[in-house]
Amino acid sequence: MPHIAIPEGLPGIRGPLSLRPEVAKPLSAFMEVLMRDSNALSRGERELIAAYVSYLNNCFFCEHAHGGVAQYYLQCDIAFINRVKQDFNSTDLPGKIKALLAIAASVQKGGKHVTTVQIQEARSAGATDIEIHDVVLIAAAFCMFNRYTDGLNTWAPADMDFYIERAPAIAAKGYALD
Amino acid sequence: MPHIAIPEGLPGIRGPLSLRPEVAKPLSAFMEVLMRDSNALSRGERELIAAYVSYLNNCFFCEHAHGGVAQYYLQCDIAFINRVKQDFNSTDLPGKIKALLAIAASVQKGGKHVTTVQIQEARSAGATDIEIHDVVLIAAAFCMFNRYTDGLNTWAPADMDFYIERAPAIAAKGYALD
Repeated sequence: MPHIAIPEGLPGIRGPLSLRPEVAKPLSAFMEVLMRDSNALSRGERELIAAYVSYLNNCFFCEHAHGGVAQYYLQCDIAFINRVKQDFNSTDLPGKIKALLAIAASVQKGGKHVTTVQIQEARSAGATDIEIHDVVLIAAAFCMFNRYTDGLNTWAPADMDFYIERAPAIAAKGYALD
Repeated sequence: MPHIAIPEGLPGIRGPLSLRPEVAKPLSAFMEVLMRDSNALSRGERELIAAYVSYLNNCFFCEHAHGGVAQYYLQCDIAFINRVKQDFNSTDLPGKIKALLAIAASVQKGGKHVTTVQIQEARSAGATDIEIHDVVLIAAAFCMFNRYTDGLNTWAPADMDFYIERAPAIAAKGYALD
């Protein structure tokens, strides 16, 4: 049961956001720009980073919501997304994405865990400053979203099909509030 | 030295924000609403929570920037802010704020660390659902801001006077970008 009174039927972060529309609006606008605006990283790559950080933070709703959207954009199956979360180095992801996922994993632990060696490896694999900037901010942002979602003990559907089935609608509509 | 090229002279989070104005705008609007809009928690209390979480995350810039603004709003000296960070239970802060700081400390560790007992203690001390919501979101947001600031290894002035002296200007101008 959520720690505070939240309208029923709204999954994960959607519940608390509904309580504070004045906060939800800029937060959703931020999410829309960060995750969907034209960017050197594809939408699928950004959703994959979000799913991975949410997995590291053990946030069930965010992990599966963004994992679902990642598999939709990347046109892969959910088993691939799960392999990335468990051991991305063993997958056939490009070296640049692996290097950025390593940076994301350090950010999840804390900002000071990012090393100059990790940055050099990302650069050697072709990452730009803006891509490095964005991966740090995406990983940091999901350390917020995950804590907001779980810190209020929100409800999340247990059925994995829920996350797969809603992905096309999320991809079509985006994150900005009307 | 920052991990990516950042214009010199912009302290802490201001540097990377300058690289991505399209992201900085909604993020600053979010910060303005969260930290300054009319709210059951005072601006000083919210800044104190931000400083405390930043201290727990060992983010020098955010800890002292928000500590400086907190002491300005609360009209206390910086030694009091430091005592709160080190052991808020030993201060004469109201029970409600102590209970909310305990929730913030749990959020800093991870969303699932917030307990029903902590929520009950905050309620018993007079906290409303919106105050509990807001403290969870403020603590979560600073887990993002701290990681963004430190994950890019940004520069921060070492001189404590810098943070005290700029506080009145921050309080007057707020966080929203023009």
